[in-house]
Amino acid sequence: MIQDREKAAFEAGIKLGALYHQWIGTPFSNDLAPTIEKVIEGSVSLQPFVKDIKVSLVRERVRENPYGYSELTGDVLDVHVVTEVNGATCHAALSFEHGYPLMKLVAIENQG
Amino acid sequence: MIQDREKAAFEAGIKLGALYHQWIGTPFSNDLAPTIEKVIEGSVSLQPFVKDIKVSLVRERVRENPYGYSELTGDVLDVHVVTEVNGATCHAALSFEHGYPLMKLVAIENQG
Amino acid sequence: MIQDREKAAFEAGIKLGALYHQWIGTPFSNDLAPTIEKVIEGSVSLQPFVKDIKVSLVRERVRENPYGYSELTGDVLDVHVVTEVNGATCHAALSFEHGYPLMKLVAIENQG
Amino acid sequence: MIQDREKAAFEAGIKLGALYHQWIGTPFSNDLAPTIEKVIEGSVSLQPFVKDIKVSLVRERVRENPYGYSELTGDVLDVHVVTEVNGATCHAALSFEHGYPLMKLVAIENQG
Repeated sequence: MIQDREKAAFEAGIKLGALYHQWIGTPFSNDLAPTIEKVIEGSVSLQPFVKDIKVSLVRERVRENPYGYSELTGDVLDVHVVTEVNGATCHAALSFEHGYPLMKLVAIENQG
Repeated sequence: MIQDREKAAFEAGIKLGALYHQWIGTPFSNDLAPTIEKVIEGSVSLQPFVKDIKVSLVRERVRENPYGYSELTGDVLDVHVVTEVNGATCHAALSFEHGYPLMKLVAIENQG
Repeated sequence: MIQDREKAAFEAGIKLGALYHQWIGTPFSNDLAPTIEKVIEGSVSLQPFVKDIKVSLVRERVRENPYGYSELTGDVLDVHVVTEVNGATCHAALSFEHGYPLMKLVAIENQG
Repeated sequence: MIQDREKAAFEAGIKLGALYHQWIGTPFSNDLAPTIEKVIEGSVSLQPFVKDIKVSLVRERVRENPYGYSELTGDVLDVHVVTEVNGATCHAALSFEHGYPLMKLVAIENQG
């Protein structure tokens, strides 16, 4: 038997893995960053079981190339996603830790 | 000797090839489509030698999946890009023709 | 408290979401398909908590474009992945069902 | 009038822009690198107007993450591509210069 908490964790993993590999490489600038954040949030929110999503591009880690812009890399991505399956809610995050874009479970809750 | 017209054509090719493979697979909906168009335009505009870019997601070709959204595919992408290198201007396009996301040169002009 | 079964499910989700959005759009042919399958398997196997991975490109669903090749799309991808976290083992799959590249949990087992 | 040399330059740009944004982010290791090089070459070779392609992942620039593998980034990619349109041959390259994955025209030749 697979539990709803496990399904919610699975769905959170899908969303983080998917957004990372979809968006890595996107050319952006500090001016464009707020729009990129919103469009990633909008795109992920369309997918099943997503209850909430918050995307931040960490401005102080953005390194401009000689042409004055950047490409989205794992070290600037900070994401929190919340998924829900039949009342089980999963909070998961993507952030850059120890030189790695680490995806981790933060909390899983059952509806009261 | 490489001509500025050839460089402008090369740059136009880079931009079309890059945007296609960066954005294919992005989850979107008709509501999100205008934002996606703008963010692709904004992202491509940051790159060197881009003078103009117009991106349209062809709404009538969008097919929703059972969850009520779509993923960006080559058949809905319609792009015109203009690059300029030292006064040589190249117009190129990406559109779906004969079952293929065809990229082609439209015109190359020298500055008068 | 987050359980190892939930972590294993989360990791399986990451791997499926990631590989889908990394590889969608890749030009391939029937001749190249076995190599693509092996390289996706090799690439996913490098990632933490992956115990097994099997990738098949469903040959009968491959549609050649006018230039005699294809691009990897969700309808030809068939994947089974097994993740393991501290003895909890998760089996998950990606296959095309009802017009959608569906990712689902197949089974979660505890060692012992 | 658009010249065959310009078309060959355009096609070379498409191939470099496309492969960069398709493959960036792919998990790989030094063991897997030769296979990745061959599969990128095989994938690009399928596309129209490609006469030759050579892909090298620059081993000394590969930085392993804490889990013992890497993700393909612009600084490790070294590519030479040759396109041909009606006897006009274009040589172009992608290499990491000045902190940027620079794509440039190397030579364009007319058939003798």
